[in-house]
Amino acid sequence: MAEKLSIEPYKGVRDFYPEDMAIQRHIFDTWSRTAESFGFERYDASVLEPSELYKSKGAENEELVNDQTYTFVDRGDREVTLRPEMTPTVARMIAGRHKELPFPVRWYSIPNLFRYERSQRGRVREHWQLNCDIFGAEDQLAADVEMIALAYRSLIDFGATEEMFSIKVNDRREMKEFYHSLGVIDEESITQVTRLNDRFRKIERAEYMEELRKIVPGAAEAILEFVEKSEQTENAVTKALNAIGINNVQIDRSLARGFDYYTGTIFEIFDNDPKNNRSMLGGGRYDDLTSLFGDERIGGVGFGMGDVTMRDFLETHDLLPNLNASASLIVVPTETKFNLDGEKVAMAFRGAGVSTLVDISNRKLGKKVTNAAHSGAGYLLVVGEDEIARDEFVLKNLADGTESSGSLTDLAKQIAS
Amino acid sequence: MAEKLSIEPYKGVRDFYPEDMAIQRHIFDTWSRTAESFGFERYDASVLEPSELYKSKGAENEELVNDQTYTFVDRGDREVTLRPEMTPTVARMIAGRHKELPFPVRWYSIPNLFRYERSQRGRVREHWQLNCDIFGAEDQLAADVEMIALAYRSLIDFGATEEMFSIKVNDRREMKEFYHSLGVIDEESITQVTRLNDRFRKIERAEYMEELRKIVPGAAEAILEFVEKSEQTENAVTKALNAIGINNVQIDRSLARGFDYYTGTIFEIFDNDPKNNRSMLGGGRYDDLTSLFGDERIGGVGFGMGDVTMRDFLETHDLLPNLNASASLIVVPTETKFNLDGEKVAMAFRGAGVSTLVDISNRKLGKKVTNAAHSGAGYLLVVGEDEIARDEFVLKNLADGTESSGSLTDLAKQIAS
Repeated sequence: MAEKLSIEPYKGVRDFYPEDMAIQRHIFDTWSRTAESFGFERYDASVLEPSELYKSKGAENEELVNDQTYTFVDRGDREVTLRPEMTPTVARMIAGRHKELPFPVRWYSIPNLFRYERSQRGRVREHWQLNCDIFGAEDQLAADVEMIALAYRSLIDFGATEEMFSIKVNDRREMKEFYHSLGVIDEESITQVTRLNDRFRKIERAEYMEELRKIVPGAAEAILEFVEKSEQTENAVTKALNAIGINNVQIDRSLARGFDYYTGTIFEIFDNDPKNNRSMLGGGRYDDLTSLFGDERIGGVGFGMGDVTMRDFLETHDLLPNLNASASLIVVPTETKFNLDGEKVAMAFRGAGVSTLVDISNRKLGKKVTNAAHSGAGYLLVVGEDEIARDEFVLKNLADGTESSGSLTDLAKQIAS
Repeated sequence: MAEKLSIEPYKGVRDFYPEDMAIQRHIFDTWSRTAESFGFERYDASVLEPSELYKSKGAENEELVNDQTYTFVDRGDREVTLRPEMTPTVARMIAGRHKELPFPVRWYSIPNLFRYERSQRGRVREHWQLNCDIFGAEDQLAADVEMIALAYRSLIDFGATEEMFSIKVNDRREMKEFYHSLGVIDEESITQVTRLNDRFRKIERAEYMEELRKIVPGAAEAILEFVEKSEQTENAVTKALNAIGINNVQIDRSLARGFDYYTGTIFEIFDNDPKNNRSMLGGGRYDDLTSLFGDERIGGVGFGMGDVTMRDFLETHDLLPNLNASASLIVVPTETKFNLDGEKVAMAFRGAGVSTLVDISNRKLGKKVTNAAHSGAGYLLVVGEDEIARDEFVLKNLADGTESSGSLTDLAKQIAS
């Protein structure tokens, strides 16, 4: 073949070379640890889902599926979609076992999700997301509070402090009650005001008021005041969060959240750094996710947080640790003819739980020793004629330069301890 | 909507409810630990790849891509394939950085792979696979031996013993030399004999000989003897494996391996249990995987092992541990009005590294305590009026029934220690 293949990945997706994979794993492992520290159980499903799962909510969704997802027809004439979000999948799974599951159910997952994005700088078509939900809790307040506490800990567990981020809370029911108290009752006006509120922090006050007056002429001033003063107020959720020791939380009455299925508490977490001042995480309460699948209505509260935003946050706040993934021990044969002896030595250490890399390269001994010293490994062991003949080896501690000699069993015990 | 959505996943893929996910994670975590114990670094890439990556090797591959993969055209008119194997991806990534990478490079990944299978019982369309490769090692023997040692340890590290499985080794170069020594030189005959050998253990001896005589009339007896007696022979790889302490390894001259790109050592691991007697893992050496992408020819040795076969092996040999994923501590509020106090108590334990679940259900106190006792959790802590008033709590050890009381800080220290 004359023409060479491209080394680039498919447009909009990422290759994870080891140094990026180490960061990705650090993020996933920390997410996982946080979720499990709240007693959440992990689930997963395939990235392939029947397309009807996303089209079920009417024409608007159908358009969304056609325009913004990866959807294709398989050879059996089934329409298939690469999941763009996890909620429909988890709703399907909960509905499938609603009779056996001991509610409240606490589940989390770290799925990859696909969206067909027009090519925009920095936008990826595949990303990973931490998804956490509590389903079927009768005590909604406790569940809402626990879910926000988990979102909070999912940053704290990376080493973040409260000053680095802000939790903003709103409640769709409370907003509705407030609008009703002003005589704003028709759903269409409420929807329009909600959409406008979503832009409150992005547009000028005058523009906000002008548009607001067009929608609800008699209630505009009251709504503005409600929104502007919301940070000084509190509700049951923010009070409870303060009580359990979470202080960087505020009511924000402009908070709207896009998804239609939210019916109660909604929340977002924002990065406080001016260089990265954006929403990192969002979630909320929904009354019913499962009646599309059967007669049962099961509600819950959940949130999602993406890997790209998470990594940006960790880099902005210098929270990424040194993720050197080197083996603990580097075995260096003096000459390549001792490579297999090196492998034999390594097996003794691996069997004792010590990760061991054998340098089987053709590099010179001096170069191999230097490389080992710079690899981040803790120990070095040279294998040559003498060592093999005497069956006694010298283990060098690369951190402090000390050496100890002995049998492989003794040395392996020494590292493993 | 009158019609309800199906709770079934897309055809041929699996949902991972928590109990299955726990097994899946046990498998992935053990694979990961084994690979890292050899100093391998983890990489990953998207499941979406440009289709040309799989079509590059001529018409036969093009047919394979069209018939057996998930391939579709995106909105930008790009042909995209859900990766059916990882080797083309890793070849692309190695080629993309061949100038910077310090060879030999040891990489592993646990990708999900998709194949469009006609509906067959038990065949899945998506599976996960441990993929390990050593690229660019000058000492091919040492690399081959290390790779088979890693495959071996990937079973041993699950608790398997040598009696449970057999490693079979062959070598394409040695086979070629042998055929040449018999005067069988044309590639077509060698390919036909190789394909027949692949069926050696599945068909009768007479049938094998009949077909063999048709292909190579003058060499059939010699080939039969070579194949039949191969278990009593050894080569450099099996000798070295014995020397490093691996005994369940044999030469098998009938071993063929399907992939055309293998050029040297090939190997498979078989389950010895008669109920599950099949190939679990296969791999081999290839001279060149990267010249499709540029002028550089980089070879290596690698293997792949699937999650479905792995789980079958673990179940057949009763090697799955108890994977109870419960929290360490269950906090039980005496009444639901203390649920938020329960959440507050839980935060103290979570902050100390103790995974803690709060039972916020409406169940009766007695039922909640019984559930906690059966959950697999190590500890139980009841939160009620008295405990809150005194700010002193009683921690019950569910394993031995002992109780200790104190402040939350003291009790958290006690569990964490």
